[in-house]
Amino acid sequence: MDSVHISELSWPVYDEKVRDGRTMVLLPIGALEQHGPHMSMNPDVLLPTAMAERVARKIGALVAPAIAYGYKSQQKSGGGNHMPGTTSLDGLTLTSTIKDVLKEFARHGVRKVAMVNGHFENSMFIAEGVDLAIRELRWDGIRDFSVVVLSYWDFVTEETIREIYPYGFPGWAVEHGGVLETSLMLHLHPHLVDMSKAVDQPAATFPPYDFFPTKPHWTPCSGCLSSAKPASAAKGKLLLEVCVEGISQQLRTAFD
Amino acid sequence: MDSVHISELSWPVYDEKVRDGRTMVLLPIGALEQHGPHMSMNPDVLLPTAMAERVARKIGALVAPAIAYGYKSQQKSGGGNHMPGTTSLDGLTLTSTIKDVLKEFARHGVRKVAMVNGHFENSMFIAEGVDLAIRELRWDGIRDFSVVVLSYWDFVTEETIREIYPYGFPGWAVEHGGVLETSLMLHLHPHLVDMSKAVDQPAATFPPYDFFPTKPHWTPCSGCLSSAKPASAAKGKLLLEVCVEGISQQLRTAFD
Amino acid sequence: MDSVHISELSWPVYDEKVRDGRTMVLLPIGALEQHGPHMSMNPDVLLPTAMAERVARKIGALVAPAIAYGYKSQQKSGGGNHMPGTTSLDGLTLTSTIKDVLKEFARHGVRKVAMVNGHFENSMFIAEGVDLAIRELRWDGIRDFSVVVLSYWDFVTEETIREIYPYGFPGWAVEHGGVLETSLMLHLHPHLVDMSKAVDQPAATFPPYDFFPTKPHWTPCSGCLSSAKPASAAKGKLLLEVCVEGISQQLRTAFD
Amino acid sequence: MDSVHISELSWPVYDEKVRDGRTMVLLPIGALEQHGPHMSMNPDVLLPTAMAERVARKIGALVAPAIAYGYKSQQKSGGGNHMPGTTSLDGLTLTSTIKDVLKEFARHGVRKVAMVNGHFENSMFIAEGVDLAIRELRWDGIRDFSVVVLSYWDFVTEETIREIYPYGFPGWAVEHGGVLETSLMLHLHPHLVDMSKAVDQPAATFPPYDFFPTKPHWTPCSGCLSSAKPASAAKGKLLLEVCVEGISQQLRTAFD
Amino acid sequence: MDSVHISELSWPVYDEKVRDGRTMVLLPIGALEQHGPHMSMNPDVLLPTAMAERVARKIGALVAPAIAYGYKSQQKSGGGNHMPGTTSLDGLTLTSTIKDVLKEFARHGVRKVAMVNGHFENSMFIAEGVDLAIRELRWDGIRDFSVVVLSYWDFVTEETIREIYPYGFPGWAVEHGGVLETSLMLHLHPHLVDMSKAVDQPAATFPPYDFFPTKPHWTPCSGCLSSAKPASAAKGKLLLEVCVEGISQQLRTAFD
Amino acid sequence: MDSVHISELSWPVYDEKVRDGRTMVLLPIGALEQHGPHMSMNPDVLLPTAMAERVARKIGALVAPAIAYGYKSQQKSGGGNHMPGTTSLDGLTLTSTIKDVLKEFARHGVRKVAMVNGHFENSMFIAEGVDLAIRELRWDGIRDFSVVVLSYWDFVTEETIREIYPYGFPGWAVEHGGVLETSLMLHLHPHLVDMSKAVDQPAATFPPYDFFPTKPHWTPCSGCLSSAKPASAAKGKLLLEVCVEGISQQLRTAFD
Repeated sequence: MDSVHISELSWPVYDEKVRDGRTMVLLPIGALEQHGPHMSMNPDVLLPTAMAERVARKIGALVAPAIAYGYKSQQKSGGGNHMPGTTSLDGLTLTSTIKDVLKEFARHGVRKVAMVNGHFENSMFIAEGVDLAIRELRWDGIRDFSVVVLSYWDFVTEETIREIYPYGFPGWAVEHGGVLETSLMLHLHPHLVDMSKAVDQPAATFPPYDFFPTKPHWTPCSGCLSSAKPASAAKGKLLLEVCVEGISQQLRTAFD
Repeated sequence: MDSVHISELSWPVYDEKVRDGRTMVLLPIGALEQHGPHMSMNPDVLLPTAMAERVARKIGALVAPAIAYGYKSQQKSGGGNHMPGTTSLDGLTLTSTIKDVLKEFARHGVRKVAMVNGHFENSMFIAEGVDLAIRELRWDGIRDFSVVVLSYWDFVTEETIREIYPYGFPGWAVEHGGVLETSLMLHLHPHLVDMSKAVDQPAATFPPYDFFPTKPHWTPCSGCLSSAKPASAAKGKLLLEVCVEGISQQLRTAFD
Repeated sequence: MDSVHISELSWPVYDEKVRDGRTMVLLPIGALEQHGPHMSMNPDVLLPTAMAERVARKIGALVAPAIAYGYKSQQKSGGGNHMPGTTSLDGLTLTSTIKDVLKEFARHGVRKVAMVNGHFENSMFIAEGVDLAIRELRWDGIRDFSVVVLSYWDFVTEETIREIYPYGFPGWAVEHGGVLETSLMLHLHPHLVDMSKAVDQPAATFPPYDFFPTKPHWTPCSGCLSSAKPASAAKGKLLLEVCVEGISQQLRTAFD
Repeated sequence: MDSVHISELSWPVYDEKVRDGRTMVLLPIGALEQHGPHMSMNPDVLLPTAMAERVARKIGALVAPAIAYGYKSQQKSGGGNHMPGTTSLDGLTLTSTIKDVLKEFARHGVRKVAMVNGHFENSMFIAEGVDLAIRELRWDGIRDFSVVVLSYWDFVTEETIREIYPYGFPGWAVEHGGVLETSLMLHLHPHLVDMSKAVDQPAATFPPYDFFPTKPHWTPCSGCLSSAKPASAAKGKLLLEVCVEGISQQLRTAFD
Repeated sequence: MDSVHISELSWPVYDEKVRDGRTMVLLPIGALEQHGPHMSMNPDVLLPTAMAERVARKIGALVAPAIAYGYKSQQKSGGGNHMPGTTSLDGLTLTSTIKDVLKEFARHGVRKVAMVNGHFENSMFIAEGVDLAIRELRWDGIRDFSVVVLSYWDFVTEETIREIYPYGFPGWAVEHGGVLETSLMLHLHPHLVDMSKAVDQPAATFPPYDFFPTKPHWTPCSGCLSSAKPASAAKGKLLLEVCVEGISQQLRTAFD
Repeated sequence: MDSVHISELSWPVYDEKVRDGRTMVLLPIGALEQHGPHMSMNPDVLLPTAMAERVARKIGALVAPAIAYGYKSQQKSGGGNHMPGTTSLDGLTLTSTIKDVLKEFARHGVRKVAMVNGHFENSMFIAEGVDLAIRELRWDGIRDFSVVVLSYWDFVTEETIREIYPYGFPGWAVEHGGVLETSLMLHLHPHLVDMSKAVDQPAATFPPYDFFPTKPHWTPCSGCLSSAKPASAAKGKLLLEVCVEGISQQLRTAFD
């Protein structure tokens, strides 16, 4: 009954681990969002969870239950929130969830949390939730609570990018349902990918502005913003290793 | 790549299933809450999820990603929110989460949702979230969206209660970390239970009022409100069957 | 110009009573809700107010102005919020009202408050309001403010239940507009009851789940969930005495 | 069992009266606020309630349960919210209460509501609550719901002012706990006034700005902003008649 | 690069000025609101800004960027929020803006702020924003932060009123788009006034209550509540001098 | 009295321009934020306002009053919200402001709005405000209201980047108080820049995560994230022309 997952610990075991504030908690934050016809709708939660588990084992941290619903998909990074299946929260709801959960961990004694984000659109609402939690904790006299906010793709090295995208890197913005996520899913959850459904398409291009309500014709019919065809489990393995290594290394010293 | 779990479907498959409004969606709602020294902190999310999966298979429904954090543990039904490990949301946060998610399902075409609750304290905030979602959907001209709200223990029959608790039923209120939840976990997730840590204790008794802030000494040291000792995997199997059968039967006609 | 009602005191008299924190304040919380064709719509506020007055006199406490509007009537305990006359608040509104009022009493010096609830559906929103008030008071450095939350019917003893319901107790859930409330009103406010309009009906039965929006045909036409016919002023007198005695006894020691 | 008070009607009687939208509902809004050493803290709720009852009888309207807690006392019109006994709501709480209650009346069929205000500081938060209710009702397709917002002192005629204040009218701003309210209370609720405690003091004067946090020394020690000494039950009777007459007359045609 | 405007300072210069808490900050609060056919829609922001600049120079204070959008125009003081061009915030939005900005100034070290209001309807929402800011600052241990809230017209002396309105003063309430604002604009921003479009009309009269939704026919067609015809730049110059002098004088000692 | 600024129009002129929905409104959104020792704190509001004015003249649009306070400065793009002078709003406050203002423009008849953002951190909260406005307008039956959200730097062409940064482009992220903003300010508002105070510093580098609360030593002492030394008015002129041209061109067809 030992586990890196907080949810799988009994309370006395968890309490023992966190009450002195030294154990870090990793909190994966995802989304339920369409990722094309070739993939399930949960990569944004499964991928940061997988990374958090591996990082936690390497650095002696714990993993909190993932937040499964995220902020609204934006058209230029996720296809848009008009798509079927995409299931999103208002900004305030996500912000409040993060605020509440962080304050509870602080009550338990936790002083170091790393938010492991898997859904681009969450970023600013995570930042706001963290800021509000720190504010209220300060009102409770807790001034040594710190939070790292990271998105896993920011740990893919330039070298890896060149290896994964030998034909040219389209940019993270259009990597929605593309090579990055599909490769990682092929490696980690192959039964949730069906490459026969992957659409060969050029990377989506957009004007230099956002438009509301979304213009559905801007989003490729597949819902993906670039082609998943070049994805492979081997690439996924490499990406996972690079991210886990990079995140672990950074978190080891981030709170010093 | 077929699944009862929405998160495991690609969006075109999901879209096909729900856009005409006939497929029901089951939404498990749990908590991260201490459940004594003998059990992990996730029964409130694992148990309704397990039931939702089985019900979904029986009646042709889908299961949405569970809501993993719930409302604050109350002392007389969950030991209280001062306990280590228990990690809760403010009422408004939970209500908003439910409102937002329901509205998204409605946008996809879903017209029938059953909230499968595993954490007693969630009930009224679920009701409020449902009410607010229905209100806003009405403003969007959607008037045929309906929601069942249920807690799985309400489907344990009188007969089963007599079988499970031959020595007398203490009431659901004190079944926190007791025979019901422990038996179900022993059957479904035995690696998350360590019966050697189960404490033999009488059912907790409380005065006929609630007190805030909690009086820690009211809660038994274990965090459980009754003894898990009489729990068994066999009882868990029975309880699971009874609940799955009862919920399935009710949901088959609830939306008629 | 002395009174148990805060509202009927001048501020210097009130100030003298509460500034040292020893005097308890009782805060009745009700609803404006249909209670059948034989009764006015205010029992949920009149009954806890009547009890609070009597308790206050017995134990030297004060009674704050009642909160006259409550949370939405639920179909299985109050007939449902689609009924004419029922006039309810959103959960957050009730919670905020309670939070604000409690913080003000704390500012005056009050340290002991008992919420005397007369409307079942209020319970969790009262709990949340109390929790939020205590949180903010803690931020103001006030850490000795405590609150009892009670519903008066929880003080009806088993013995009294047997006496009042010789033919069998249907459960508090369906006591909406039934013997309990009608008897108390007949004793306390007989001009607000017209027994000639009381409907003879079996106790309502419901499936083991809630449904939204309400299914109007689930609610008996009268709006009552059980028959008020067996009600009497004598039963009301007994119930009042038992509740006042029980509440007084508990409150005398609750804050020790 | 007939009454101008909604709370004292059974639901079928109320339903009959309001469902066609022709009956007006009067909603008194007050405060729990210090009013000097010579008077109880409830004039702001008792006085508009008394007027609403009388107006309702004259024009065939109904009176809803009063809102007993109001917005924060401002120093230049109510002595300030630092005073003992004054028990106030945040602006949003009051606004939300009004919004919720108005929407419920509209659901019942009511189309004409008059808010009868007894506490100066409530005014803008009432206006906001009304505006938000009308907005949401519009979203529900209800476009014929109208609301009058009035404060009773605005119906005291110039002639009456000259009669009541032969020595010069200090202005409504400093009439807090002064001749107006005290006279009305002497007429309506003499047991809640003790003229022997009334302080003889000049009308308070203030600089042409507000200051936060309040400067306690700006408020006269009594908490009153002008002297109640010239108050009398006879003046109260006159004021009541003038207000009831003026309000009735205006409301008769306001909704045409 | 020196300026009374905070926005025109570099941060080290600003920091030097405010970090010891001695420099006062003036915060103009306006509205975007119709002011008749003869005038631009920004007097409510330009006029308090102009005064704040002049006051700041006289007393050594700084001026913060004005809040350009205000609370909803009320029919009896601003023509009503149904008018074209009038662009308003919900009460909570304005309150939150003020709360947030004040807390930031306090973080910089500022301890004295004067809110210079130019839009009547803002007043109570400013008061609420200030109250909430002070509350949260108190939770941060900041207890010496004070705020003056003023509306510039309250500094027009009786003598000046007699001079400006020799034919009788209609009251500030109907001075919307009238002599006061038009004269000040003619003096300060003559290119934003076209007196040939000024309408000669009697001062608007209203019943002693507010009505929602607004009754458009209550508002004169021009949108002004009184005639701007008697306005002149000379009157504007006088009004500006009187207000600047009065505000400066009061602010010099308000925080002692 | 004609102007591209809405605030400088009388209401009948504005009404004439917008009521048929054909005229586009540009809404600049900025911040009050430190931009180094060599520059005032208002570039984020002055620059989008300047561009909006020029774009409006080219394409026949109107400019609404700028929103002067923005979301919290993030350390890796703005130096962090711990810096003196930086004065920010909570996310919900900014979101609500945008929602409210957009709904008002829609009420006037406007159907095309372009948000011209000058502060990176605003982006997601603008998106949320726009989404919420569109939702509520839909509830009001307005379904043809569209919004472009743009940040002006996204219109700087690759060619211009090469020209402005011959020594290599550090990326927009660290362009806070650097060449882009300083050059534009030198061209547009030279009196608000003092190049003698510009610090020569390498572009800031950060780890691939955010940290809360900010680590002050991460931010260069100047508050700038890259050197403003290479800035010039000529570069500013070029940048302004390129942005105005690019934005105008895009907006001409964006709403087709």
